[in-house]
Amino acid sequence: MPGKTREQVLGLLVDWGKKVADAILRGDEPMLEIPARTLSNTVWDPKRRMLLLGQEKVHRRFLDLKEARKFMQTMLMLRLIVEAIRSDVYPTIRDLYYNGKHTISFKDPLGKVHRENTWDEQSESNAVIEDIEVAAGTLREEMGVSADVKGKIVGPIVVRSQGHELDASRFGETALSLPVNVDGLEIVRVDASYVLVVEKDAIFQRLVREKFWEREKALLVTAKGMPDRATRRFVRRLNEEFGLPIYVLTDGDPYGWYIYSVYKSGSIKLSYESERLATPEAKFLGVTASDVDTYKISDQYVIAATDRDVKRAQELLRYPWFQNEEWKREISLFLKRRKKVEIEALSTHGLRFLHEYIREKIGKRMWIG
Amino acid sequence: MPGKTREQVLGLLVDWGKKVADAILRGDEPMLEIPARTLSNTVWDPKRRMLLLGQEKVHRRFLDLKEARKFMQTMLMLRLIVEAIRSDVYPTIRDLYYNGKHTISFKDPLGKVHRENTWDEQSESNAVIEDIEVAAGTLREEMGVSADVKGKIVGPIVVRSQGHELDASRFGETALSLPVNVDGLEIVRVDASYVLVVEKDAIFQRLVREKFWEREKALLVTAKGMPDRATRRFVRRLNEEFGLPIYVLTDGDPYGWYIYSVYKSGSIKLSYESERLATPEAKFLGVTASDVDTYKISDQYVIAATDRDVKRAQELLRYPWFQNEEWKREISLFLKRRKKVEIEALSTHGLRFLHEYIREKIGKRMWIG
Repeated sequence: MPGKTREQVLGLLVDWGKKVADAILRGDEPMLEIPARTLSNTVWDPKRRMLLLGQEKVHRRFLDLKEARKFMQTMLMLRLIVEAIRSDVYPTIRDLYYNGKHTISFKDPLGKVHRENTWDEQSESNAVIEDIEVAAGTLREEMGVSADVKGKIVGPIVVRSQGHELDASRFGETALSLPVNVDGLEIVRVDASYVLVVEKDAIFQRLVREKFWEREKALLVTAKGMPDRATRRFVRRLNEEFGLPIYVLTDGDPYGWYIYSVYKSGSIKLSYESERLATPEAKFLGVTASDVDTYKISDQYVIAATDRDVKRAQELLRYPWFQNEEWKREISLFLKRRKKVEIEALSTHGLRFLHEYIREKIGKRMWIG
Repeated sequence: MPGKTREQVLGLLVDWGKKVADAILRGDEPMLEIPARTLSNTVWDPKRRMLLLGQEKVHRRFLDLKEARKFMQTMLMLRLIVEAIRSDVYPTIRDLYYNGKHTISFKDPLGKVHRENTWDEQSESNAVIEDIEVAAGTLREEMGVSADVKGKIVGPIVVRSQGHELDASRFGETALSLPVNVDGLEIVRVDASYVLVVEKDAIFQRLVREKFWEREKALLVTAKGMPDRATRRFVRRLNEEFGLPIYVLTDGDPYGWYIYSVYKSGSIKLSYESERLATPEAKFLGVTASDVDTYKISDQYVIAATDRDVKRAQELLRYPWFQNEEWKREISLFLKRRKKVEIEALSTHGLRFLHEYIREKIGKRMWIG
């Protein structure tokens, strides 16, 4: 378990708050130093092959009129989170928004009453949660903040959650739904040859019901489309801690390829988390644009790309992490033909062809790195 | 396990196909009799308190030019499903669409070649799957058709899937993801006082992490918004087979109330499945429009309703299953104030207030039936 305990997280947050209090007691201006989560401070690290935050910091000063409100919001949120940990509750970010929202009244020396809401929109309270995450170096999941979870797994792995051992090879037609805080999950043992990350939930269900994973000793993972933080963190741990190869299987379109890149390199919005969420070793298994030729998928089984697909593909071409020959060729081919292929289109070759496709691609190393 | 085995389902489908073949061999016109899945044939049964299909049937005749195409599609799909069962694969409806899509060529007596696609859009192949379900009286899940699954559970229940026992009270911070075919799941034992169906996944996660279910002996269920077939079937089984009370917890808005009604009474689109999916005994726990007064939720914590919310509320007022005094009062109150309340707004009274809210509503029977 690489994660921090609740006590350790509490210690970190309390220390951070104490520094501010100490400055006040010393008569200094209280100030928070927070890594800047801006686009200009989001950089592609070619060595580590992931999107990371740069060195830029913001200094949130209490005595700066423009920043006093944000300063107050950060301190308020810090208090709410510390209180939540102390009272052993696991609020969602929306709970924290409601719990902290109130109106502050202040009578100035001339007797005039000023009113100010702690925050008006959830975007404001969310932003300070992210600030606290980067400044205190601890994930919201570790702080006990709850969120939707999309990830499910099935396959030869045993995990332990709060003392309970769960063997994901003994789930029949059900699946194990990941916890919010994946770092709190102990991976007891894994006996898999590789991890197959499946974009589509229904395809995951097929592969479970057809016992594909059992014959292949594969660990199946899905997050139903765009992965959430928990699934990304789990995939990263499987690769980092157990050296398992990660293969990603999506539809053959720019949205599917982008999903793959989020697993592999991180996203701009969450670049401050890439170091823990991204898996640079992840390989793209399919469906590629050239699979249409390789697997003879005739024209009646492909779908015309929309303008949005084309725009997205052009964006992909600009991302540093799609700058290799294979991806440039694939995306250019897509832009030339403007055709999408769904993973299910492989079923034109028979309802079991998907198995052969996966096995052949892995066996013959037909992936894109 | 109330479901049919794969062999039983195969028998049903083969028998149905045989009848058609026998007619042809006898020299009769082959014809399919299928219950009409139309709005006019969708009726509210006040006694059974659910949306059901009426008595109307369509007769799909092979020798009727208008129906020959649909006839061919139905036979083709029947063949695909029978083949899938025989080869032990579990295709999705999209796999079946691709697998069956091809062009039929026919040279007429004058030598002219006619071409016809088996189907052009997935809506066509989906429609014949539904026809086969109602005509053969067997669910697609039982036929081995795969689909996305949204449902997750945690709590005092033991189920068995393909020989593996799973105790959902020993999942720690993870959850048990339901299978596609809930009727293939054996419910070994349940030790719950009630079932709490939670609209929002993040709230489900909170209640899991805060061990609410343990203290309450509650079985927690979520389907993240609008429930899928698997989750609805599972909730129905818990109520029907084990007599467990079902309480539904959603946001206080017309969308949340509609979600509740889908669990309780079924949906128009799936009325042909209500007999197996609907749970007329389900109770609505909250959030209601009048909770704003009961729980003193001040104006800054409510959200202005959109035109769409208002339109949806007006629709609810017309549904037969919202025709009781309590619902009419609640929906009218909503239409008067035009304010929505999220479940998280209860956190203005403290991060643990949600527990008290649920306990009080159940303890004092403050639900709507």
